[in-house]
Amino acid sequence: MKKPFLDENFLLYSDTAGQLFHDYAKQMPIIDYHNHLPPVQIAEDHNFENITQAWLYGDHYKWRAMRTLGVNEAFITGDKTDKEKFDQWAKTVPYTLRNPLYHWTHLELQRYFNISQILDQGTADYIYQESSDLLRSPSHSVRGLLEKMNVKVVCTTDDPTDNLEHHISFANADAALKMYPSFRPDKFILIESDHFLPFVKKLEMVTDQEISCFAELMDALRKRADYFAGLGCRASDHGLEYLSQTDYTEKEIDQIFTNRISGKELSFEQTEKFKSAILYELGIMYHSLGWVQQYHLGALRNNNLRAMREMGPDTGWDSIGDWSQAKTLSKLTGRLDNENKLPKTIIYNLNPADNELLATMIGNFNDGSLKGKIQYGSGWWFLDQKDGMTKQINALSNMGLLSCFIGMLTDSRSFLSFPRHEYFRRILCNIMGDEIERGEMPDDIPWVGKIIQDICYNNVKEYLNM
Amino acid sequence: MKKPFLDENFLLYSDTAGQLFHDYAKQMPIIDYHNHLPPVQIAEDHNFENITQAWLYGDHYKWRAMRTLGVNEAFITGDKTDKEKFDQWAKTVPYTLRNPLYHWTHLELQRYFNISQILDQGTADYIYQESSDLLRSPSHSVRGLLEKMNVKVVCTTDDPTDNLEHHISFANADAALKMYPSFRPDKFILIESDHFLPFVKKLEMVTDQEISCFAELMDALRKRADYFAGLGCRASDHGLEYLSQTDYTEKEIDQIFTNRISGKELSFEQTEKFKSAILYELGIMYHSLGWVQQYHLGALRNNNLRAMREMGPDTGWDSIGDWSQAKTLSKLTGRLDNENKLPKTIIYNLNPADNELLATMIGNFNDGSLKGKIQYGSGWWFLDQKDGMTKQINALSNMGLLSCFIGMLTDSRSFLSFPRHEYFRRILCNIMGDEIERGEMPDDIPWVGKIIQDICYNNVKEYLNM
Amino acid sequence: MKKPFLDENFLLYSDTAGQLFHDYAKQMPIIDYHNHLPPVQIAEDHNFENITQAWLYGDHYKWRAMRTLGVNEAFITGDKTDKEKFDQWAKTVPYTLRNPLYHWTHLELQRYFNISQILDQGTADYIYQESSDLLRSPSHSVRGLLEKMNVKVVCTTDDPTDNLEHHISFANADAALKMYPSFRPDKFILIESDHFLPFVKKLEMVTDQEISCFAELMDALRKRADYFAGLGCRASDHGLEYLSQTDYTEKEIDQIFTNRISGKELSFEQTEKFKSAILYELGIMYHSLGWVQQYHLGALRNNNLRAMREMGPDTGWDSIGDWSQAKTLSKLTGRLDNENKLPKTIIYNLNPADNELLATMIGNFNDGSLKGKIQYGSGWWFLDQKDGMTKQINALSNMGLLSCFIGMLTDSRSFLSFPRHEYFRRILCNIMGDEIERGEMPDDIPWVGKIIQDICYNNVKEYLNM
Repeated sequence: MKKPFLDENFLLYSDTAGQLFHDYAKQMPIIDYHNHLPPVQIAEDHNFENITQAWLYGDHYKWRAMRTLGVNEAFITGDKTDKEKFDQWAKTVPYTLRNPLYHWTHLELQRYFNISQILDQGTADYIYQESSDLLRSPSHSVRGLLEKMNVKVVCTTDDPTDNLEHHISFANADAALKMYPSFRPDKFILIESDHFLPFVKKLEMVTDQEISCFAELMDALRKRADYFAGLGCRASDHGLEYLSQTDYTEKEIDQIFTNRISGKELSFEQTEKFKSAILYELGIMYHSLGWVQQYHLGALRNNNLRAMREMGPDTGWDSIGDWSQAKTLSKLTGRLDNENKLPKTIIYNLNPADNELLATMIGNFNDGSLKGKIQYGSGWWFLDQKDGMTKQINALSNMGLLSCFIGMLTDSRSFLSFPRHEYFRRILCNIMGDEIERGEMPDDIPWVGKIIQDICYNNVKEYLNM
Repeated sequence: MKKPFLDENFLLYSDTAGQLFHDYAKQMPIIDYHNHLPPVQIAEDHNFENITQAWLYGDHYKWRAMRTLGVNEAFITGDKTDKEKFDQWAKTVPYTLRNPLYHWTHLELQRYFNISQILDQGTADYIYQESSDLLRSPSHSVRGLLEKMNVKVVCTTDDPTDNLEHHISFANADAALKMYPSFRPDKFILIESDHFLPFVKKLEMVTDQEISCFAELMDALRKRADYFAGLGCRASDHGLEYLSQTDYTEKEIDQIFTNRISGKELSFEQTEKFKSAILYELGIMYHSLGWVQQYHLGALRNNNLRAMREMGPDTGWDSIGDWSQAKTLSKLTGRLDNENKLPKTIIYNLNPADNELLATMIGNFNDGSLKGKIQYGSGWWFLDQKDGMTKQINALSNMGLLSCFIGMLTDSRSFLSFPRHEYFRRILCNIMGDEIERGEMPDDIPWVGKIIQDICYNNVKEYLNM
Repeated sequence: MKKPFLDENFLLYSDTAGQLFHDYAKQMPIIDYHNHLPPVQIAEDHNFENITQAWLYGDHYKWRAMRTLGVNEAFITGDKTDKEKFDQWAKTVPYTLRNPLYHWTHLELQRYFNISQILDQGTADYIYQESSDLLRSPSHSVRGLLEKMNVKVVCTTDDPTDNLEHHISFANADAALKMYPSFRPDKFILIESDHFLPFVKKLEMVTDQEISCFAELMDALRKRADYFAGLGCRASDHGLEYLSQTDYTEKEIDQIFTNRISGKELSFEQTEKFKSAILYELGIMYHSLGWVQQYHLGALRNNNLRAMREMGPDTGWDSIGDWSQAKTLSKLTGRLDNENKLPKTIIYNLNPADNELLATMIGNFNDGSLKGKIQYGSGWWFLDQKDGMTKQINALSNMGLLSCFIGMLTDSRSFLSFPRHEYFRRILCNIMGDEIERGEMPDDIPWVGKIIQDICYNNVKEYLNM
């Protein structure tokens, strides 16, 4: 007996799994505690003109799939019309079978547009028309899209120099939805990058103070962090290959910073020392603010130099790296903890070979001071699919407490990606239901249901003091 | 149709699996060839006063779970009463769903105390009373507990300087149970550690000889090994991050040792050379004794400096490291083999990313001289759960011969952890039974049953000449 | 209800899986685009004298299994008779349960010899006689064996100095089967190896030109590549621990080459530079020829020095290494791409911990220029079994497009190993069928069947311009 594709019991393979999802998980609101949504569009309650703008303008997952199939870049990020681009995507979709894009695409069509058809060349015209019409209507403004998914809070990702004007104007709009900024100071950590000096300049302007030494840099960042905190920020975020953590002296750091400011070349050892220092100082700062710090570790970025030249960063040319993570991660976290200044911390890995390493690392610093203080973050980016989520859930279950997990986030640039919360919840409920049916867990639906609700919503609400 | 929780067919999902477990695996005795049981308690046939002493005094798995849930350290390793500690554990148990602790806890309650209830705050008082009463009775002395699980042999883990008095007194007690020591000379390998000099001093005293050069160190260790061998020792053990193996000369090693003795600082290169040399020499020694050498590789220890200061080592602050293992492991093993002096060897990995590496490494030195000479050790520590065991079994099956495997061990400090052998056997039988039902294996129950019995008992008995 | 062992629905666990295999996959011909078959035996349409010669003379998989069980080397590579060797193998087979050898052995007996019995000591005599008789008959010449499996093309693996005489004579034989050479210049890359100088000498002779600098080496290799191309070669292959890729100057490379030629010792840094340079130059060359380049990464070879001395390389003493792969792989591929000279490329990993790394790496250089330009190669060597293939298929599905995959190859030295294509196809069909039955994929059999046929045959045919 074949199960129909993507029906109401999608991914739920037992009655118990269905019961857990429909009676417990489904109803929980969403706190999307880390994403890359553009604050301006939320503040202005933007309406997209068509589905291509909402779906294809910023989605490097889809771009990579199209390129792999052999679609010319003109139809991806190039100058073809929105309809032409959509048609190429429609042609690509049937070739994405087994890729999460296939599920996401059809989940999104169902949930946002009530379209149950399979997207392909035959349905492309109809689906383009239907979905684009809706996107232009008030019900499908970006806030409408979030409301449809029962989203209560979104935490955007923002540069310390950002004036957060859209967060301010939106806060004043008094909507049921909350939008908080997150503090992402990566440009001030990557001292070797071309971005470093311009952003130090920008930070000087924004804080109206000179930055001529490391202490002044930290001072300026603290000012900005206070500003962020005033607008509801309660988390920072970092995207790094690995957490640098070599020994250094304060004097060395000052010298390194001064050298960089005065245009001197830095050695690898020097950049490592600087990163070691600033990550530590930032941790101290987050702790004093009561924030959560997030580490996204292991992306190998901008591999395609030709594409980087022609299209810039974040256009779909990144992959999974294989740096050693354990010792430096332990060292940085341990140094902070040793001072009793370790903030709540979420660690995400991009290489699934590190799953068990992380699932055990968090236990080193969960010290009984609060429930799930250190978190092993949900499947991220390339791992944000059924296998990736399942493996993260299993590693966390085997080596930590799944019950203390703060659950799913989109990490997305797209307003249409929120069914991924549903996707995660179905997978979670199926795992739990299956174990009940197999007698690996007692048949205590209310208790298991409560744990599921905690993972979906209650835990993160408490964790982020919302 | 839901299967009841933890019934007699727990983890057995087909009739064939059930048949293999109940007719073949269940009846096999246990040789627990590597654990950390305290010899004194076996020699004195200790009775615990209550379940907290037996379950919670030394179990860092449970401690980590409690800390993750936010339980205060006073209730874990602190000065609260045993009943108060147990109550906190009882409160924690329902939050450990999907962690192996949940299964182990209830298996142990069933097998040792005939208690089928779920442990939680509601049942805590009853279970505390019932289990503690039994633990004070003669039937539940530590030898009673071992007998209940059909344990024939335990191999403890002992420092070379240990006088093994309890092994001696117990050997004289003429019990059916055998207890053999294992030789764990890690303190003499980790030359950079604070423990090194005191233990060299201790070794001088115990052997009544001066140790002023490397040859004398090896000499003294050999004396102790002979002493261990006289008491039935047939295995050594090492717990190391990775197997150091850089080139060195004998002269360098002598110089390094002399420097250390005379209080000079050693470089990283020097400590690596020393470790390379002593691991090689120990291998030669084990070979001449006909011993099995065990390598436990990949633990990142004592990450939490604050806890280390307050509680000391082995209190639950360790995690999985990510060192390169292949080349040095191959080099050390290869050097020994090249001299025709490679002992039987068991290699255990803590990072499951190394599973396939190890499962193929053993094949490099399985040379036809005896069945399963080099073994890929069973899932260990964080990997000692259903997923971890399954992955180890699968890697070994795919890349080696599962039929030659010497199977499970507890590696435990707890007298109540022996149902883990049953747990392993159920998983093994389920895998085999499932493949028969699927037609991936012929329906030859006697043959598959024989292989299962070999893995459960016969192989290790032969391997360790018991 | 037990499924019979290895029946027509072996590995197919749903009706849909059966339908996909029997109606779509089974009928597709085989292009075995990378293997190690001996060209001379194909050219001469060799008949083996007995099953030992065909099965056991060159199969290090079987040798390792026998050694692990404790079979003496005399019965493996030694001087015992073919029948005595076969008997030891027959004795070993029942102990290989769960190892792919068990499935392969019985699949091969069924497909080539119509023998459905289980091989063990009881059936050894009969099976030896029956299969050997057939192997001596015209129907079971090596071409007969390939024809039975519907093999249309084989690509052998050949040294650049090879005169390809057998390819030439076979091409003239005008058979339906095609045999093309592949270009494997590893001996010219591994500059530190003892093979380097003799092979440079050999290359001088074959090309009738002096090789006194790096440019002349590349020139000579190009001559040979052109010669290979003239005989239908369309792919190169490399077996390397990792892709060296450090910075260098042309002058340095010339100096390194001259030093080597004149017998000077090279440093590790120098050999790395040389390899970085030659891999880059070879890539440029392959691109200009329109070839596919293949990288087989991650084998740790010849671990057993004693066996290496006594038996030489490739006798079953290799295992899985754990080098970092991401950065150097990205760098080499990126440099070639940056010049618009990146050839079609297939990357194979031996350590499954690198699966996701590779599955995402290929996306960095799939640029829309053609379908599936960069390929993540099928499960290889130790990973060439059900779990390994499944994990490769899943990683590719989750992080790339499975639909663009060029599928399976044997990489084998044995004419009897072609049922592995069937094995792969059954696994693939089962995965797809299962997802249809679960409602994770629409019930569109013709479309899924088409994708399966693409993966089995059409994609690789197009990819290699066959």
